Amino acid sequence: MIEFKIDSLSDNLNKELQEKIDTKTKPIGSLGMLEKIAFQLGKIQNSLNPTINNPNVVVFAGDHGIADDGVSFYPKSVSYQMLYNYMEGGAASTVFAKQHGIKFNVVDAGVDHDFDPSLPIINRKLAYGTKNYRLEPAMTKEQCLEGIKRGAEVIEEIHQNGCNFIIFGEKGIGNTSSASLILSLLGDISLEECVGRGTGLDKEGVKSKFDLLNEGLSKYNQSKDPIDVLTHFGGFEIVMIVGAMLKAAELKMTLLIDGFIITSALLAAFKINPKVKDYCLFAHKSNEQAHIKMLNIMGGEPILDISMRLGEATGAMVCFPLIKSAAQFMNEMASFQDAGVSEATEEI
Amino acid sequence: MIEFKIDSLSDNLNKELQEKIDTKTKPIGSLGMLEKIAFQLGKIQNSLNPTINNPNVVVFAGDHGIADDGVSFYPKSVSYQMLYNYMEGGAASTVFAKQHGIKFNVVDAGVDHDFDPSLPIINRKLAYGTKNYRLEPAMTKEQCLEGIKRGAEVIEEIHQNGCNFIIFGEKGIGNTSSASLILSLLGDISLEECVGRGTGLDKEGVKSKFDLLNEGLSKYNQSKDPIDVLTHFGGFEIVMIVGAMLKAAELKMTLLIDGFIITSALLAAFKINPKVKDYCLFAHKSNEQAHIKMLNIMGGEPILDISMRLGEATGAMVCFPLIKSAAQFMNEMASFQDAGVSEATEEI
Repeated sequence: MIEFKIDSLSDNLNKELQEKIDTKTKPIGSLGMLEKIAFQLGKIQNSLNPTINNPNVVVFAGDHGIADDGVSFYPKSVSYQMLYNYMEGGAASTVFAKQHGIKFNVVDAGVDHDFDPSLPIINRKLAYGTKNYRLEPAMTKEQCLEGIKRGAEVIEEIHQNGCNFIIFGEKGIGNTSSASLILSLLGDISLEECVGRGTGLDKEGVKSKFDLLNEGLSKYNQSKDPIDVLTHFGGFEIVMIVGAMLKAAELKMTLLIDGFIITSALLAAFKINPKVKDYCLFAHKSNEQAHIKMLNIMGGEPILDISMRLGEATGAMVCFPLIKSAAQFMNEMASFQDAGVSEATEEI
Repeated sequence: MIEFKIDSLSDNLNKELQEKIDTKTKPIGSLGMLEKIAFQLGKIQNSLNPTINNPNVVVFAGDHGIADDGVSFYPKSVSYQMLYNYMEGGAASTVFAKQHGIKFNVVDAGVDHDFDPSLPIINRKLAYGTKNYRLEPAMTKEQCLEGIKRGAEVIEEIHQNGCNFIIFGEKGIGNTSSASLILSLLGDISLEECVGRGTGLDKEGVKSKFDLLNEGLSKYNQSKDPIDVLTHFGGFEIVMIVGAMLKAAELKMTLLIDGFIITSALLAAFKINPKVKDYCLFAHKSNEQAHIKMLNIMGGEPILDISMRLGEATGAMVCFPLIKSAAQFMNEMASFQDAGVSEATEEI
């Protein structure tokens, strides 16, 4: 097993952080959730002046054997086609990354396609997609551990370029199915409660998806070990994200968590080392119905709730400017004293 | 009475707008509220390619006679002191405007202070604060109508500089009291339900605020005419915002609505001409408890719900990048056809 050494966050600055927030020229508490975010950023960076440096998004892409069974509205080929769409800047993910000045990276974790090596795709391919876990484990344990290692390496390189703020994204037709199974096993929740509409299935589609996944689940040995769960039901993109998250927390980066699939990876990472969660901000509550159950397990409080369910880190990127606002008010707003503004009176 | 000629929005492009949204490379509906925003922007601009041009925020500032009774935590002097804070860029409002490239304007609608004319403050002062409406009407009807006119003029000038997207903000110690009274009268809701914590009052403070406002209300003739209500209980900043909103809608600008006080101005504008609402996007649900009641009266769906209650347009500015994302995905994302990505299959 790969070891990650994640430090606990220190409470040393708690009092000073709160005081700095409270003496800004605004009523106490009036920036609401932005104040909580600022506090958390300060704790993660152990600084009263938290900053977001060279923010990066990394979209990990992989194909899923289960997709051949038709768990999604879309054919498997959409996974690789969307990577070409990223190259052209035509996807929601690339549009929002450009809008916010977030560096966009895409990793081929295991897409069922050969990309020209000259393309700006980070090649960490484990195989041409996972096996169909309705019939057999998605991958070998070796592949799972190798995926975690490769994910960690990707983050290490990004960190070396001065990045302290990381957003994870995913692309993989069929991957809400993996996420549902991971939630069911690691969250100890009946599979039925974990299966949702994915890219937009109707009631019948969800039922058929449930039946397929349930068939896979019935063949599983019921181990709750996260590596076993990932090996059996993971996607290559998901296992790499698990490693990427654990490494990012080890490196004291701030992790901005997107929706259902990304949070399933975090749940696995959390089961490996719960301290990873302390380095996370939770961007949004996805419209995929079971996402909130994952957040509740880890005590993650989502910032946005705007019915998004696109994946590709889009929910996180749309939330990004709010995180930046939190850092910015900490660094740029005047205190009552600085600005010569009268403070609240006690008597009214 | 000043007349504003606000056009109804056309439904001509509805079908094409929805089709454009639905054929972008993403599952149908998966951008959630951003899709609704994009649709609304398209309708307002009567365009399949809505754009946000030269966005401006205008903070109208005014003082309130009622503040002398101690309805707020803060002394009246904070209103003018905060304008100096804006000049230095040290307020939440100016920090967020800078972050998002929104041009910041501040209007002296009726602050109890003389500003040096060389300062970049738009001087439209009606008087040195309103009268205390616990004892007498806040202003004369002439002042109210003049305020509406001056607010409209401010927007006209901003529009002439190529702005099609406007955010309103306010500054005025004591102005949640005005907003509560406006809501009570124009929304036909008991005053008790409309009074809230403002800058952070405790239960006792809220009770004392209610008693003071109720005393004022008992001396009012109960007319529900919006001009009468504004004359009696308005602030100078509020009446100017009413005029500014009506003019902005007349000019087919998009209005991004902030929190409790701004929405009280919109409620008055809505009672004057309900079409103004069609040009609005609702940025957030304020933590001031009665804000949601105002939104419900007009059917306004707030985008964010992050417990903000600062005023100064801060809730709207924090929401601004999401509106921009909506415009940007409309203009920059590829369609399935453009990108050569396979569309959803019908059978699964």
